[in-house]
Amino acid sequence: MDQQRRERLVTLRRELHRHPEPAWCEYWTTSRIVTELERVGVDELLVGPDLLDADARMAVPDEATRDDWHDRAREAGAREDVLERCEGGFTGALATVERGDGPTVALRVDVDALPITESDEGGHAPAEADFRSDNEGFMHACGHDAHATIGVGVLEAVVESDFSGTFKLLFQPAEEVIGGGRAVAESGVLDDVDHLLALHVGLDHPTGEVVAGVNGFLAVRQFAAEFRGESAHAGGHPAAGRDAVQALAAAVTNLHAIRRHEDGATRVNAGVVSGGTATNIVPESARIEGEVRGETTALMEYMSERADDVIEHAAGMHDCEASVRTTAQAPSAESDAALADVVYAVAEGVDGVDSVLHSAPLGGSEDATYLMDRVQERGGRASFVGIGTDHPGGHHTPTFDVDERTLDIGVDVLAGALARLW
Amino acid sequence: MDQQRRERLVTLRRELHRHPEPAWCEYWTTSRIVTELERVGVDELLVGPDLLDADARMAVPDEATRDDWHDRAREAGAREDVLERCEGGFTGALATVERGDGPTVALRVDVDALPITESDEGGHAPAEADFRSDNEGFMHACGHDAHATIGVGVLEAVVESDFSGTFKLLFQPAEEVIGGGRAVAESGVLDDVDHLLALHVGLDHPTGEVVAGVNGFLAVRQFAAEFRGESAHAGGHPAAGRDAVQALAAAVTNLHAIRRHEDGATRVNAGVVSGGTATNIVPESARIEGEVRGETTALMEYMSERADDVIEHAAGMHDCEASVRTTAQAPSAESDAALADVVYAVAEGVDGVDSVLHSAPLGGSEDATYLMDRVQERGGRASFVGIGTDHPGGHHTPTFDVDERTLDIGVDVLAGALARLW
Amino acid sequence: MDQQRRERLVTLRRELHRHPEPAWCEYWTTSRIVTELERVGVDELLVGPDLLDADARMAVPDEATRDDWHDRAREAGAREDVLERCEGGFTGALATVERGDGPTVALRVDVDALPITESDEGGHAPAEADFRSDNEGFMHACGHDAHATIGVGVLEAVVESDFSGTFKLLFQPAEEVIGGGRAVAESGVLDDVDHLLALHVGLDHPTGEVVAGVNGFLAVRQFAAEFRGESAHAGGHPAAGRDAVQALAAAVTNLHAIRRHEDGATRVNAGVVSGGTATNIVPESARIEGEVRGETTALMEYMSERADDVIEHAAGMHDCEASVRTTAQAPSAESDAALADVVYAVAEGVDGVDSVLHSAPLGGSEDATYLMDRVQERGGRASFVGIGTDHPGGHHTPTFDVDERTLDIGVDVLAGALARLW
Amino acid sequence: MDQQRRERLVTLRRELHRHPEPAWCEYWTTSRIVTELERVGVDELLVGPDLLDADARMAVPDEATRDDWHDRAREAGAREDVLERCEGGFTGALATVERGDGPTVALRVDVDALPITESDEGGHAPAEADFRSDNEGFMHACGHDAHATIGVGVLEAVVESDFSGTFKLLFQPAEEVIGGGRAVAESGVLDDVDHLLALHVGLDHPTGEVVAGVNGFLAVRQFAAEFRGESAHAGGHPAAGRDAVQALAAAVTNLHAIRRHEDGATRVNAGVVSGGTATNIVPESARIEGEVRGETTALMEYMSERADDVIEHAAGMHDCEASVRTTAQAPSAESDAALADVVYAVAEGVDGVDSVLHSAPLGGSEDATYLMDRVQERGGRASFVGIGTDHPGGHHTPTFDVDERTLDIGVDVLAGALARLW
Repeated sequence: MDQQRRERLVTLRRELHRHPEPAWCEYWTTSRIVTELERVGVDELLVGPDLLDADARMAVPDEATRDDWHDRAREAGAREDVLERCEGGFTGALATVERGDGPTVALRVDVDALPITESDEGGHAPAEADFRSDNEGFMHACGHDAHATIGVGVLEAVVESDFSGTFKLLFQPAEEVIGGGRAVAESGVLDDVDHLLALHVGLDHPTGEVVAGVNGFLAVRQFAAEFRGESAHAGGHPAAGRDAVQALAAAVTNLHAIRRHEDGATRVNAGVVSGGTATNIVPESARIEGEVRGETTALMEYMSERADDVIEHAAGMHDCEASVRTTAQAPSAESDAALADVVYAVAEGVDGVDSVLHSAPLGGSEDATYLMDRVQERGGRASFVGIGTDHPGGHHTPTFDVDERTLDIGVDVLAGALARLW
Repeated sequence: MDQQRRERLVTLRRELHRHPEPAWCEYWTTSRIVTELERVGVDELLVGPDLLDADARMAVPDEATRDDWHDRAREAGAREDVLERCEGGFTGALATVERGDGPTVALRVDVDALPITESDEGGHAPAEADFRSDNEGFMHACGHDAHATIGVGVLEAVVESDFSGTFKLLFQPAEEVIGGGRAVAESGVLDDVDHLLALHVGLDHPTGEVVAGVNGFLAVRQFAAEFRGESAHAGGHPAAGRDAVQALAAAVTNLHAIRRHEDGATRVNAGVVSGGTATNIVPESARIEGEVRGETTALMEYMSERADDVIEHAAGMHDCEASVRTTAQAPSAESDAALADVVYAVAEGVDGVDSVLHSAPLGGSEDATYLMDRVQERGGRASFVGIGTDHPGGHHTPTFDVDERTLDIGVDVLAGALARLW
Repeated sequence: MDQQRRERLVTLRRELHRHPEPAWCEYWTTSRIVTELERVGVDELLVGPDLLDADARMAVPDEATRDDWHDRAREAGAREDVLERCEGGFTGALATVERGDGPTVALRVDVDALPITESDEGGHAPAEADFRSDNEGFMHACGHDAHATIGVGVLEAVVESDFSGTFKLLFQPAEEVIGGGRAVAESGVLDDVDHLLALHVGLDHPTGEVVAGVNGFLAVRQFAAEFRGESAHAGGHPAAGRDAVQALAAAVTNLHAIRRHEDGATRVNAGVVSGGTATNIVPESARIEGEVRGETTALMEYMSERADDVIEHAAGMHDCEASVRTTAQAPSAESDAALADVVYAVAEGVDGVDSVLHSAPLGGSEDATYLMDRVQERGGRASFVGIGTDHPGGHHTPTFDVDERTLDIGVDVLAGALARLW
Repeated sequence: MDQQRRERLVTLRRELHRHPEPAWCEYWTTSRIVTELERVGVDELLVGPDLLDADARMAVPDEATRDDWHDRAREAGAREDVLERCEGGFTGALATVERGDGPTVALRVDVDALPITESDEGGHAPAEADFRSDNEGFMHACGHDAHATIGVGVLEAVVESDFSGTFKLLFQPAEEVIGGGRAVAESGVLDDVDHLLALHVGLDHPTGEVVAGVNGFLAVRQFAAEFRGESAHAGGHPAAGRDAVQALAAAVTNLHAIRRHEDGATRVNAGVVSGGTATNIVPESARIEGEVRGETTALMEYMSERADDVIEHAAGMHDCEASVRTTAQAPSAESDAALADVVYAVAEGVDGVDSVLHSAPLGGSEDATYLMDRVQERGGRASFVGIGTDHPGGHHTPTFDVDERTLDIGVDVLAGALARLW
């Protein structure tokens, strides 16, 4: 990669970093990406409802929140034409380059940021080099700014290369809430893909290390459980109340007591709980925001069904009602070994790469799995590639940052691998 | 009371004490009482199914147990004619004396013993005076031997007295399991009663103290809850099991967590629990023998309905099934103040009585309440009379015993009170 | 009471109603009362730290909140001299009138309001007659505006009357948070009182009904329990976390499962719960705002000790730490029958009173009990008097209002009773 | 193997099958084995306390039980000299054959039976061929009769072979209660072993299949937790009691709620629970017989420490005391790949073997792991070999039986592998 391109990518990454936007509100980001795609030149550019199955979107924020970010994007200079196409939270983009017959190869990157306040201390590079978040309280603390940038760099390389086939480049919204992958999958825009690569930087791998096929995705379901009882004065009429907090407590304890499963790892967490209105009032409502996971999709579903039972009966036990709503979901997936082998072979020859792993576990969840499963179910192949980067703070912390050398490496590994797939 | 009668009553009481029989198995006891009733002379003597509504009986032991006690009674000298009438657990007796027009007045005593092994140590009078239980493992540890004896003494006094009206003397079976009161009430044999007295000795009142109207009966429901799941190897197939012990645990904790009630005292107890078969097997069954109580019948019913809910949902929460069976039940009741006043007035004049209380709380449950409620619902009056007795050990302990001076006092107080009711 | 005085009291009550202030922030209210006391004329007027044992105050809001209300009072016209004496939340006042030898007689009224938004609908008299709360979000929804007004009316009557002895009139702050009674009691300012009357309007008694001696105060302790664990990623490192929400859940369930007590009624409530930060993070902290009560102070203490145990061990069970802080507390108390008899006799002769009850239960908690217990422990007598008032909405609801005829009745009953105590 | 030897082994296996004895009570079995060892001829024969570290034995039954089986063994014809050496539950035997310099190679088989009543239905071979259990209620339902027999067969082959080194053949007692492995390990008798093979038949592998190195041993700790409270009448004095069943319930629920671990599989089971004495008595004692497991020893220890905490605090929460006693324990272990390779190579050439697996998971626990870990810690190698056998009923069920062709295969595979280790 020449110095000029390298500098342009670094500039782009920093610009994206300064404009972090949360899931389904990536208006400015989409606008900025569209401008890049038009600059590089693509055959087709999809933005808006055709990219996303509206009913399959999960964890979409309310209208007021979306409108607020829409306004902020406009104020920050987003293009009116893009804002209009994204209205209602239809963010993200799909660029297509067609060059005659040949396989369809796709790369998926994600673009949303996190509700984390970025560090402003010395030693945190974005603060020192003046590209710290403009949107106080939000931050690219997981490297999606780098992902989008690598996507643009790969597009440049592909467009300049000689190949016969189709390239699809997806900038997926709403990964952090595990909310966007399903909507893209169910829109069908990737149904013709023969080879899919997805990408993540970091994951505790240092700069120079590449994982050809990440595995160990935990299938996940996040849910919100609401308990409804009836309030009453706790001193004067204790039995006139129906106590939603007692229901919550029975649910939390017994959620964790769902039996372990012989087929593999499972997880459960009641991450956020709240309930009641005053010390002396029998609580009439309570809420759990929780999640279950499984090493396989079937294990997640086992946990999920048992969790629904526990919640329903915890409510019934205390004469309350409960409802459970899925707020986010992602299946498990496996990287194809053969496709990973291609990445492995390419990575070994890339400048700056000093360690290549065939496989390593993610230990968390990702909604790229929806896309991987979709492609694999239709006979295609998919692999999730890890591009190591030195990151001073952990993922999802205020001091997270990427080593910008990773941008080169990421572009070279992925563009190189794609070149072998046509 | 003359010396001869006193000695006869003491002898009878000791004979009954030596032959304790559990609830619904009072075969020998019924036979012995029938003989006494015939000796004294009554106008009608009811023994068998007409005395007890068969379907209303609770906590009846299985046939093998009943047959065993039937045989033991025969071996101990019970009369064949009585044994035949009692067959199937229809124990107890009702004697009637009719003397022309006038109110119907009734006295209820109870006759069953407890599954407690009687002390054989020095200092325990029945052991020293050689009338300790012949039925090892069973014992008159609550004074029902004295109750039955006082009943006979009162009958003698009534028969010798001059009155116009009807006297009904009930020897009720199965009080200790709270199983007989309802069956007698629902048979209707006391439906014509104008005044009902019931009797208990002791209750922490010393010899010489009389309570004219005991109150504070807690309505009670005893139940057996069975949880059924599915066993599996706990190491190899933990999720293949459905764990009845987890259901039990959720039930126990949440039974105690049933909300307190503004209308008065409630109780709950999971008195006996068991479940599972081996350390390394997911338990497929579990069982709670528990109870709920209330200061009023309505409060007991509140607890009972909530308990049923808790048990059902504790099972559902762990993918198990539950069934709940009522094993014993008794309502609350109140002693009539006016009737208690009669007892009070009489008791003050009885030899050996040095303290008379208008009322005192029982603090427990009694199935005489079925009879009291039945009589009161039909416009009659009822009072539960406490006859104090020094008892070295507590009720239901191996060293319980009654002070035999209580027999005289009991007969005098009750016969005296009855005499004022015609 | 003459028409002019009646109108003045109504005006005062409405003025107080328009300026509701929460516990420990009654700056404007205190200022307004002081002006009235000076107008009527008293021998001694105590405002500030001498009235309140600083360490015994409970549920004092933070400095920012107090400062805010201090500023608002100034803007609403409160006197600088009073504001200065009250600084730091030392609100309330004690007026003393001395007339030679004779008993010391006291009346306690309370002056704080509630964090409730007052109704602005037609039919709500304060909205219609234009004296609805100026402090949006706060409201005199429990009649303390009437209490303070009756206090002033009684003072007028006492000052005009002929008696020999001492009169102490207490305007107590912070009753709604059960936070002020103890501080006044422990300051010792009522230690010389021979007869104490306290006052509440309404309590479901209609206008014209008077309760000479309210009873049935539930002793109460309100507490805040904090659970501290350690966060971790719920998918990647579930066992690295120590889950404060699991601790909370175990505590809630087992708080309700504290055994019922044979000595009388108890209560427990986990009124407000919260915990955790995100669906996929093991919760590192959680909090219960709860309360326990008892029919007697001993029963409340039983519940309180058991609750502390439950919370501590619920934390330990899940490898967390817990701390429990008492936020408010009040003992039980009993109205003296003899003193209530005086009130009863007077009330029967008061215009507008058509029903007098010797006693009626409160069914809740009150921190007047600290004052009653303090006076009684030193050999004095105390009674809590209920003055009925028709109230359209219930206590502590947005449509609560008092029937202003109650002001007359309250003054007449209390001033009349006081007159008999010298 | 010649026909005569084959028949002798079948006869021996059936004889052992007819005399099942539970853990630490294998008196007759030890006697019978000693006779065989003497028949074949060994250089050293160890029986009694030197074989077993007395303090390291776990789950030893009480003296009465041991004495009973001691007597039964004598009646069944056990030798007095062996009975004497085994007295007190020091069952099992270690035979040593020494042939000059060379490595020490060991084989471990186990000899105890289970408390299961053997099927007497047609179709169950032992019932049909008349070698069903003589000890009603006990059964060789896990194939240890075959293990011991194979041990004897291997000894015959070794003795007849030409090798230079030492052979140690261990007949280990008390495997079923996971109680004997540690005692043998800590006695030190295998401390000089260079190569250890252990053996199990069946495990869902059919006749003809051999697993060269079984893995996936779950480390396990079995425990008995006792809760002690205080009894009281549940109606009259509910708060005077301290409820051990409430403690039990809190423990069971929260044991299952111990957080899952990122490092691998864990297990927990409250297999048998009991508590309380009567429906109307606050339970004063309760008991859990439970277990925890882990994919590694560290994971089992994590579960074990958390379980101890849960139990202690569940008791404290309900004002009870708890004690926890370990009743059985076994670590995890791994079969050496290199040693398994030897077995694999031999097995491929054995008559009747049609499938050889390098590795397969056990999915349960085994106390051979103590011996494997001991040998490996001292620099030796160990592998656990699975010899498939068709078994009509599952392990630990009344219709379990082994296919006797397995005896040949087991002897050939193991003797063959041993031959390659000298």
